[in-house]
Amino acid sequence: MVHIIHTVPRCPDDILDGFREQASATVHEAMGRKGALDPDIKPIAKGMKVVGRALTVKCHPGDNVMLVKAISMAKQDDVIVVDMGGLVKIGPFGEVLATECKAKKMGGLVFNCSVRDSAEITEMGLPVFSNGLCIRGTAKATLGTINHPISCGDQIIRPGDIILGDDDGVVVVPLEEAEAVLAASRARVAKEAGYIQRLKNGESAFDLYGYQALLDRLGCVEESI
Amino acid sequence: MVHIIHTVPRCPDDILDGFREQASATVHEAMGRKGALDPDIKPIAKGMKVVGRALTVKCHPGDNVMLVKAISMAKQDDVIVVDMGGLVKIGPFGEVLATECKAKKMGGLVFNCSVRDSAEITEMGLPVFSNGLCIRGTAKATLGTINHPISCGDQIIRPGDIILGDDDGVVVVPLEEAEAVLAASRARVAKEAGYIQRLKNGESAFDLYGYQALLDRLGCVEESI
Amino acid sequence: MVHIIHTVPRCPDDILDGFREQASATVHEAMGRKGALDPDIKPIAKGMKVVGRALTVKCHPGDNVMLVKAISMAKQDDVIVVDMGGLVKIGPFGEVLATECKAKKMGGLVFNCSVRDSAEITEMGLPVFSNGLCIRGTAKATLGTINHPISCGDQIIRPGDIILGDDDGVVVVPLEEAEAVLAASRARVAKEAGYIQRLKNGESAFDLYGYQALLDRLGCVEESI
Amino acid sequence: MVHIIHTVPRCPDDILDGFREQASATVHEAMGRKGALDPDIKPIAKGMKVVGRALTVKCHPGDNVMLVKAISMAKQDDVIVVDMGGLVKIGPFGEVLATECKAKKMGGLVFNCSVRDSAEITEMGLPVFSNGLCIRGTAKATLGTINHPISCGDQIIRPGDIILGDDDGVVVVPLEEAEAVLAASRARVAKEAGYIQRLKNGESAFDLYGYQALLDRLGCVEESI
Amino acid sequence: MVHIIHTVPRCPDDILDGFREQASATVHEAMGRKGALDPDIKPIAKGMKVVGRALTVKCHPGDNVMLVKAISMAKQDDVIVVDMGGLVKIGPFGEVLATECKAKKMGGLVFNCSVRDSAEITEMGLPVFSNGLCIRGTAKATLGTINHPISCGDQIIRPGDIILGDDDGVVVVPLEEAEAVLAASRARVAKEAGYIQRLKNGESAFDLYGYQALLDRLGCVEESI
Amino acid sequence: MVHIIHTVPRCPDDILDGFREQASATVHEAMGRKGALDPDIKPIAKGMKVVGRALTVKCHPGDNVMLVKAISMAKQDDVIVVDMGGLVKIGPFGEVLATECKAKKMGGLVFNCSVRDSAEITEMGLPVFSNGLCIRGTAKATLGTINHPISCGDQIIRPGDIILGDDDGVVVVPLEEAEAVLAASRARVAKEAGYIQRLKNGESAFDLYGYQALLDRLGCVEESI
Repeated sequence: MVHIIHTVPRCPDDILDGFREQASATVHEAMGRKGALDPDIKPIAKGMKVVGRALTVKCHPGDNVMLVKAISMAKQDDVIVVDMGGLVKIGPFGEVLATECKAKKMGGLVFNCSVRDSAEITEMGLPVFSNGLCIRGTAKATLGTINHPISCGDQIIRPGDIILGDDDGVVVVPLEEAEAVLAASRARVAKEAGYIQRLKNGESAFDLYGYQALLDRLGCVEESI
Repeated sequence: MVHIIHTVPRCPDDILDGFREQASATVHEAMGRKGALDPDIKPIAKGMKVVGRALTVKCHPGDNVMLVKAISMAKQDDVIVVDMGGLVKIGPFGEVLATECKAKKMGGLVFNCSVRDSAEITEMGLPVFSNGLCIRGTAKATLGTINHPISCGDQIIRPGDIILGDDDGVVVVPLEEAEAVLAASRARVAKEAGYIQRLKNGESAFDLYGYQALLDRLGCVEESI
Repeated sequence: MVHIIHTVPRCPDDILDGFREQASATVHEAMGRKGALDPDIKPIAKGMKVVGRALTVKCHPGDNVMLVKAISMAKQDDVIVVDMGGLVKIGPFGEVLATECKAKKMGGLVFNCSVRDSAEITEMGLPVFSNGLCIRGTAKATLGTINHPISCGDQIIRPGDIILGDDDGVVVVPLEEAEAVLAASRARVAKEAGYIQRLKNGESAFDLYGYQALLDRLGCVEESI
Repeated sequence: MVHIIHTVPRCPDDILDGFREQASATVHEAMGRKGALDPDIKPIAKGMKVVGRALTVKCHPGDNVMLVKAISMAKQDDVIVVDMGGLVKIGPFGEVLATECKAKKMGGLVFNCSVRDSAEITEMGLPVFSNGLCIRGTAKATLGTINHPISCGDQIIRPGDIILGDDDGVVVVPLEEAEAVLAASRARVAKEAGYIQRLKNGESAFDLYGYQALLDRLGCVEESI
Repeated sequence: MVHIIHTVPRCPDDILDGFREQASATVHEAMGRKGALDPDIKPIAKGMKVVGRALTVKCHPGDNVMLVKAISMAKQDDVIVVDMGGLVKIGPFGEVLATECKAKKMGGLVFNCSVRDSAEITEMGLPVFSNGLCIRGTAKATLGTINHPISCGDQIIRPGDIILGDDDGVVVVPLEEAEAVLAASRARVAKEAGYIQRLKNGESAFDLYGYQALLDRLGCVEESI
Repeated sequence: MVHIIHTVPRCPDDILDGFREQASATVHEAMGRKGALDPDIKPIAKGMKVVGRALTVKCHPGDNVMLVKAISMAKQDDVIVVDMGGLVKIGPFGEVLATECKAKKMGGLVFNCSVRDSAEITEMGLPVFSNGLCIRGTAKATLGTINHPISCGDQIIRPGDIILGDDDGVVVVPLEEAEAVLAASRARVAKEAGYIQRLKNGESAFDLYGYQALLDRLGCVEESI
């Protein structure tokens, strides 16, 4: 078995840059309501935004040696996504490793476990998304995999997929759908901008979307005013 | 069955304004330790304060069409309280609907589920309290009710009740008790202000409240100094 | 049975001051990965740091009278650690008691339950760590203990132990180990500072720590590039 | 304020008996998917079934004196529903009180907290539904209410409502809807019995319900076989 | 996009039969500590054992129409694995659908959400694993996929993979590893049988595994007896 | 530092035998409402009862080598109590180790994590209490301690303390209080037996305990009948 894979398809930079302007919720909707990671995975500080290409790591729960290796392999705009088995009460990532990630201009990291040194990481401006914060350290004794497909936040993440996250959570876009999803996201934003302007002017979303017909069809009874 | 009710008693503005100066914990205590919604319901950003008249919505879990209708009915200072069945992993409210709420000068919204577009909502200054943040969208296919009594955060909320929330959580005041509770809250604040001044001057709460007598009665044994 | 003990060993000020410069994760590692309280116990506002001598309180769950007594006994730099039985849905500590704590220049407080009046406490600059925020008040009717060993966050806390907490969580250092742990923490920081500089210069942690040998020993197979 | 109310409407025995043959999920569906209490509330032993008239109790969290009073008021087939504030880590009900409930031939009890002495209660055959099991005792020092509307499991329960629970959870039927809901439940069971027979004979629910038309309308694409 | 795929590789019957004698923990270990689904997914009644070929379904959270379709496609020994988005407070599967599954001699079903009619399902002897029990029904209005790879319990499940579950939880074995994993599982059982016999005869696992050398190497200090 | 201690005080057999007849809730009450471990720790099968002398083990989270050593040291009626850092998603104890425990006639084991092989352990009749069931294995690479005081279930457990658990949960009795607590437990049972008989005969606990006076003092208002 090959544990560590280096050959990973790479999303073009312009597609990646396009996603930088999109919100996670928009992309989720534009994909047909898919790709949302479990909402327990959130930025370690409000306002963080992560965008980049997935570099996937599967660690034995409680062991971070494969993560250290993966960081050594990371390139600019890579987002390391780590399956740590969902353990919340360990923190396998902190200031030292974050320094290397920042030096490499990585896009960020996403964990289904906790991390530590949150204040230092936040100050250096590295986007990190996790299940929480915990100071408990991990071992280095067991193999895992790098750049195999993994599950994180109950979504399948394949190496090279687009990872996009903000305060609302994280979404994964399969690489082969990236261009179409970006276009659909932009179309959605444009459409919503029109709605938003009309709502500011006093119209209601209920009328804009024409939901009275739906309520009538469902047999909704309204008190006569 | 009438699904949507329009006739709702309205608390006078001066009472509502009075509650704007009160903290949720104070009102809870002044009511006799009642009315606290489940503490899982919190503001989506620190520092938010919600005060207003309850406009109650019961949605089918995972379906937000009744919420959209309710927003179209809302007036200034209304606080829409939504029973979404306690589902944390959905986000049935975002920027578009928030825009309409803000345009209407609503008091805010309270959900027993998650919401999304938290950064945009926070920036527009709309107070929103929820079980969390989640980007997952909802359907529009099932009826619910508007302005019927609901349960949210394991408290009964009736249309027209006073809703008050801050960083500590949310409290509901039955409309018919509003005036008395406001008076009791003000009295409590006044009393505590005196205590706080004396504590700043070096006295102890233990002495101020006279708890030594209680400990003596309970048989408390203290190491002799 | 003696409920309240006054005679508590006190850590020297210079040791305490030394810990003020340390992070909780560093101290945890320097102790040999011990002492981390359950990560559910976190500061009520980002950026809080607590350092001080433990004054331990065991309350009957839902009853805070022993806490009020303990505050009356507290001295400068004391950190009151409260075992409230792990109840998240009560808030036995708020602005009034916080005022007394602040007047006494206490180091802070740590609870395995919730607290309330978080905005006011944060504004006065008192470090408080808890399981959450809740406005629900407590009774005053049942005895507990003060300055007996307690369990809080599934760690044993003895009166006089060093308590250290920040955004990542709280760690307890047994008093008799304090001096050695401080020295080990400083050594660790010095060592990591060297690593961090080299990582900023482009080296990788994987190489610095020499983990290739470990992967080889474990039989790691890498895709040939 | 009147804390304790005695005058409660009573559902006729034949209606109550009718519900004894119904499952909680059936009744929930027959009501239009309403009335399901939070699924955290479950029987303390598999196979328990509770049916009866709600006698509602609101206790101060951590205090069970009103529960003891309510039991003294209970009649045959009454189901005491207790709002204990959702505290899981207390057990305000055990063998002694259960003995009185059993002697009175009560229908059972429903709690949004834990209970204790589960083995003894199960052996005496008293249906008890709770958030869990916990041996921690409670105080008797604070008033609450009896036979006021309460919220339990995030549903409104009014005195006299029908309570129905089994392994799947608990459902509440408003008294005024009881007769219609019973009829609808019976109709649903009859209809499902027909379906079940046809499914046993090899038909598929997908065809029985005619869902291919729905999939076609939604644009479902199927691999050609 | 093709939503529904019919062409799925099928594990030979003898391999499947071999797994019927294995425990989930054994297989997990024999695979190199991989494949364990999140432990929240458990049998709805003690003693259930599920073994079979995965038929994967991705439903929109709160919508079960694709599940009904998938059941119509299932063959003997198929195990339907459903990604329902991790919603615990819905129950999209009950007696009617279970009847069809049983008639088809399916191997069972695995959900990352709740189910209902647990007593009836248990009585008919259909193995069902879920996140819990909930009586709340779901909608039928949104497409999903059938026999695409999914994530369930934070593991990747591909159609045709081997699913094995018992009281301890569920494990997934990739189809292409099935034969090797079965052999390794049998070898492990044989080896453990020898150990178990020696332990019954009074030896200790600590000595059998030779761990004193490990403790010595780690510097373990033992009180002299 | 001494990691492993052998010298542990031992409770006399007759005291231990006395506790075999007591329920965990009774002992908790008789001690003055102390000693209850977190209710998340429960028997792996209904009806298990554990009684014995604590043999305490602190493991590095995710590493069970110290547990294997501790089992090799255990004597008849010892109850191994393990602090695994509260990790629910690992299972460091299964059939092989259970076989040795059973051969040694140990009293049982208590974990603040999960275990596996629950069916086999239950069948051999070994009482095991844990946070859940999980098939995920652990490493053997890091030291911990044996027979030092630990925290488990947020209670302090010292070697030699009495451990008592049943379906309701686990309670710890400090060794030096064992005799007095046993006597108080017996007195409580005797007293309750009298109450129970009177309740069976139709009296109410409310009257037996004389709570009307309490309600009167608290100002309880009752609807006149």
